[in-house]
Amino acid sequence: MTTPDPVSTTSAITRANCEQRDANDPLRDFRDDFLLPEGTIYLDGNSLGPRTKGAAERAQDVIADEWGTGLIGSWNSASWWDLPAKLGEKIAGIVGGGAGSTVVTDTTSINLFKAASAALKMQAEDSPDRRVILTQRENFPSDIYMLEGLAEQLGDGYKVRLVDDEEVTAGFPTTMSDEVALVVLTHVNYRTGRLFDIGTTTSAIHAGGAMVIWDLCHSAGALPIDLTGSGADMAIGCTYKFLNGGPGSPAFIWVAEALQNRFSQPLSGWWSHAQPFEMAPDYRPADGIRRYLTGTQGILSMSVAELGLDIHSRVDMNLVREKSLALSDLFIDLVDERLADHPVEVVTPREHAHRGSQVSIRHPEGFAVMSALIERGIIGDYREPEVLRFGLTPLYIGFTEVWDTVEALRDILDNHLWDTDAHKVRGAVT
Amino acid sequence: MTTPDPVSTTSAITRANCEQRDANDPLRDFRDDFLLPEGTIYLDGNSLGPRTKGAAERAQDVIADEWGTGLIGSWNSASWWDLPAKLGEKIAGIVGGGAGSTVVTDTTSINLFKAASAALKMQAEDSPDRRVILTQRENFPSDIYMLEGLAEQLGDGYKVRLVDDEEVTAGFPTTMSDEVALVVLTHVNYRTGRLFDIGTTTSAIHAGGAMVIWDLCHSAGALPIDLTGSGADMAIGCTYKFLNGGPGSPAFIWVAEALQNRFSQPLSGWWSHAQPFEMAPDYRPADGIRRYLTGTQGILSMSVAELGLDIHSRVDMNLVREKSLALSDLFIDLVDERLADHPVEVVTPREHAHRGSQVSIRHPEGFAVMSALIERGIIGDYREPEVLRFGLTPLYIGFTEVWDTVEALRDILDNHLWDTDAHKVRGAVT
Repeated sequence: MTTPDPVSTTSAITRANCEQRDANDPLRDFRDDFLLPEGTIYLDGNSLGPRTKGAAERAQDVIADEWGTGLIGSWNSASWWDLPAKLGEKIAGIVGGGAGSTVVTDTTSINLFKAASAALKMQAEDSPDRRVILTQRENFPSDIYMLEGLAEQLGDGYKVRLVDDEEVTAGFPTTMSDEVALVVLTHVNYRTGRLFDIGTTTSAIHAGGAMVIWDLCHSAGALPIDLTGSGADMAIGCTYKFLNGGPGSPAFIWVAEALQNRFSQPLSGWWSHAQPFEMAPDYRPADGIRRYLTGTQGILSMSVAELGLDIHSRVDMNLVREKSLALSDLFIDLVDERLADHPVEVVTPREHAHRGSQVSIRHPEGFAVMSALIERGIIGDYREPEVLRFGLTPLYIGFTEVWDTVEALRDILDNHLWDTDAHKVRGAVT
Repeated sequence: MTTPDPVSTTSAITRANCEQRDANDPLRDFRDDFLLPEGTIYLDGNSLGPRTKGAAERAQDVIADEWGTGLIGSWNSASWWDLPAKLGEKIAGIVGGGAGSTVVTDTTSINLFKAASAALKMQAEDSPDRRVILTQRENFPSDIYMLEGLAEQLGDGYKVRLVDDEEVTAGFPTTMSDEVALVVLTHVNYRTGRLFDIGTTTSAIHAGGAMVIWDLCHSAGALPIDLTGSGADMAIGCTYKFLNGGPGSPAFIWVAEALQNRFSQPLSGWWSHAQPFEMAPDYRPADGIRRYLTGTQGILSMSVAELGLDIHSRVDMNLVREKSLALSDLFIDLVDERLADHPVEVVTPREHAHRGSQVSIRHPEGFAVMSALIERGIIGDYREPEVLRFGLTPLYIGFTEVWDTVEALRDILDNHLWDTDAHKVRGAVT
């Protein structure tokens, strides 16, 4: 083992400087809305947001009062029946969806199936020869699998075609053709943190005659989004990452106003019926957002998820974005400065316009290095191949924590403090 | 208002007699596993099972320890990732499904879509001309709507045909034809409480060349079921009624062993992938039960649901059935004896072989009468048209409560103590 050169002591950035920035942070007080274990630096809020203050009390109320005492009557008296729309309204406020456009229900994958089915049905009426679904090769794989499942079920020439991220950023100069019915895009690449521009990309897709569904799993709650203004057709996303809904909390689906009453989906359970308690054998879809629903939702998970949405409803998303970029600039600068002697590559785009709310770096021993960091209570995660992922969540992560993280990385790399035999276990769930 | 005749005082049944039966009830101690409000007689456990003892503590553990402290690591360390299979194993024990056959995930409606899609795909390979799905006209409407949604999406002549309950009980003498690919049946009619025989009905359907999916929403946890022995193909059901999983707790899906590796479903999210953390863009289904999964589940709702399954794993389902029939016999006898002067009709079949775990009665003022009962703390529910529904759940309902319920009904009917202007609000969720 060679001893690395000592790090320059003339670095422009110091820990004291980071502490100063934290002291001046206008979002500082939001940290009290989260309960994080003492001594942990949690950089995995892009995978599972931490516990919200009040979650335990909310669960107690639901179990003791609503379920325990209210019993079946709580569907009305505690408004369980209205939770999907109530939480949807809060999501809409966070992602610029407009009133009456969004519901919280089911999982992201299920909601993608509904949205893609509805979009393809509209295209089958308007442009029946369009039967290709484009999506990023690097989209979160579940989205690709769901689209493949849908295309296979539809048969009749429907198929999924994969495009590279660069093609999307360039506005589809070569892949968009008159075969393309639908484009499904992740707003932020889960692995690299690359951000795509919803407005210009949507315009390029519409100019090519296709519809677009945006997956906001890695951007909702992380940066300002103006869904309505972007002209997008539909969007889906989860509530358990940047929105702190709790493990596996239900997902959301948004549909542009002009499409809402053309929206028709095959998962047409009774929650989407115009008159669910008529118990009529024939299906009639509800007007508006209830038609995106299917069946009965887990009330406990849904109720606790509301707390995370309430926090994000109180915050100015422009401030969140500003601090997020400051944190990731700092992270990247420190990697450049202090890990320069190591085979570390910053995977996340350096341009602000192309960067989400995370920094991913690549190292040949990525898995073992991340394991060593986690041993020290600094929790990021690992994604194949060789990528260490650090989520930067401005409401509870500060500049000093970024400093301490890169310093810990430096110590581990300088002194080769990782176990090369570290056993790869099943990865953490994104 | 006329004064009704006084009730006969020579009745064979007395409250004291009911109290004696409760004292001798071998299931008596199970009542301590549930937390019911003082003074309430809860006869709606067929719609939403009441709070389980320990639910609040379990939710605290999940929120404080698993989510709060364990954070992202709890997907492995708290085995969140394994909950669908772990809870599925417990369901399998309760419904005779055999090991490795069942998962708990999503909603009943979503699971029906998966099962029906998979069954139709198998039939398309084996008997491509079969394109009709039969289901009961009186099946819970969401099942019908989901099948209609699937048939519409498949197109190509797929359609849903409705049959009467009598036709099912008679073994499909006129409706089964060589067009029928799949029959989807509720095991117990949610409204009338009529029970169908899984074994003989499955045989009749298989003899006709079709496959069968059973909906066990109103029977799982209520009576002994031997899915494997019945020869059934697939089954679905919920955990929040007789299984006390909590409001909207996740549903289950069971597939017969011989069909498991032919099972292919369009909702093919990453939880069903053979190697979900490879993040490969191409879909390969897992072997076995994981291929019934789609996306990330609400861990809080799922974790609390386990408590209800644990209670039912400890109980002898034959004793449950024996007491259930004794309770419903008592209910029906008392209606016959003590409500004879009123226009009340017992809708639930009187034959044990055709009776689930509820008693439904019809009265022209059904809604107003049920409202009056609920005012007294006796909670059943109402279903169109005119039906008062009383769920009989042997683990926490006794003979004396049945007596008190019918006496309250008698008082209300004898003295016309209902509000004819009672406003019909949205019904309770089944």
